[in-house]
Amino acid sequence: MDLARLHIDVEAATDTIAAFIAQAVDGPGLDGAVIALSGGLDSAVSAFLTARAIGAERFRAYNMPYATSNPDSQAHARLVAEQLGIDFEVIEITPQIDAYFERYPDASGLRRGNKMARERMSIIYDMAAIHHAMVIGTGNRTEAMLGYTTMWGDMAAGIVPIGNLYKTQVRQLAAHLGVPQAIIDKPPSADLWQGQTDEGELGLTYAQADWILYNLLDLQQDPDAVASEVVDADAVRKVIARMERNSFKRTMPPACDISACWGAR
Amino acid sequence: MDLARLHIDVEAATDTIAAFIAQAVDGPGLDGAVIALSGGLDSAVSAFLTARAIGAERFRAYNMPYATSNPDSQAHARLVAEQLGIDFEVIEITPQIDAYFERYPDASGLRRGNKMARERMSIIYDMAAIHHAMVIGTGNRTEAMLGYTTMWGDMAAGIVPIGNLYKTQVRQLAAHLGVPQAIIDKPPSADLWQGQTDEGELGLTYAQADWILYNLLDLQQDPDAVASEVVDADAVRKVIARMERNSFKRTMPPACDISACWGAR
Repeated sequence: MDLARLHIDVEAATDTIAAFIAQAVDGPGLDGAVIALSGGLDSAVSAFLTARAIGAERFRAYNMPYATSNPDSQAHARLVAEQLGIDFEVIEITPQIDAYFERYPDASGLRRGNKMARERMSIIYDMAAIHHAMVIGTGNRTEAMLGYTTMWGDMAAGIVPIGNLYKTQVRQLAAHLGVPQAIIDKPPSADLWQGQTDEGELGLTYAQADWILYNLLDLQQDPDAVASEVVDADAVRKVIARMERNSFKRTMPPACDISACWGAR
Repeated sequence: MDLARLHIDVEAATDTIAAFIAQAVDGPGLDGAVIALSGGLDSAVSAFLTARAIGAERFRAYNMPYATSNPDSQAHARLVAEQLGIDFEVIEITPQIDAYFERYPDASGLRRGNKMARERMSIIYDMAAIHHAMVIGTGNRTEAMLGYTTMWGDMAAGIVPIGNLYKTQVRQLAAHLGVPQAIIDKPPSADLWQGQTDEGELGLTYAQADWILYNLLDLQQDPDAVASEVVDADAVRKVIARMERNSFKRTMPPACDISACWGAR
């Protein structure tokens, strides 16, 4: 496993992504951009890139905690906003989420977490409507390929600047951009319930996941070849199974083809 | 304007769409399907097709009114469910929506309407999680092409059975399937605020919109040729402008291409 092979030219990537963001905002004549800042690495990197692309004045960040969200998350989000000098607002989602789950007191953590992710999407789009702004998505390539996202929740955005970067590469970019070290160092977590960590839930480290994905997707190696290099062959099977099972999350909903049913064309 | 040219073979379309739905539900081994029944034509037709595809026993319908929703809508949704013999539940969205907008008492009808559409998406996905079921989308081709949808709201689903049918064709299929006449006869409305009608808001009748889209998309005519046939040349411009302005609603969010920034590939 040689993760150095995934290294990117961080200056080129910064310039390329900043140009992409600026074009997406200014091309259609939007007034600015909005982002949901979770306090995690992906949204921090996305925010640093966006501030560089369009400036701090027309870029707004929102942290949307639920009652059980880790308080560190909000502190880290605030830290990013302060460092960038962007407008920062906290919008609690607890009242709406609790109003809904009154009906379902026994709902699982997964159901609650997905509802929260979709509520945050709904709010960030409302903020975009107020400010005539682009919604900056914060997903990376690793979670997109593994389907480690909430459908129409955190994956839903106007553009996804770092959507083609593996988590390892996001981390590399974070160091270059000057993302606060506390955010780089903490274990990645969707923070949908207490104690959740991405790697714990996936049963894979990001290093493993990225290495497997890189070999399968970028080098087009067959699974057996990848398995022989990586310690755990189970991990390769796990990644492939997740990619297949969650492929629907990467496409628009399919419509039925009725072209053969036209009467008189 | 000869809308008969858009006629479909309703029996072939019914069979084709029912097979599509059955495959989408049974292929991945889901237990059934869920649908948001608004009381309108599109969701009624989609429900009739789904019931035909997988049977009534494992198909559940939900009506999700807000306080200001037209009471006829719920009555019509219930009528569809009763006629099909499917499980029907009403889930009010008022508490969550009001909890959110307490913060923004002056929010426009459009903002409120979009929040409601996304709340309904969020709930129907939660119902799908409970019942291990496919979310049946209810959008048609006309509204998809015109972008007359809420991004990540009513357009978000697992599959969209009637997504390739123009509104005119949905109407034709409705008559064949036996959708209640009251639903066929009423003016189409998103019912996001009182008095809203699709045609009023679009500034186009569905007959005009479908005819223009058919000529542009299916016959690949150039706009001038279409304008000469349709009474109002403004309408053609309006359709083209809407299609272009809303094209983002028909694709997944774009990610920045960073393939040129890899270090050592």
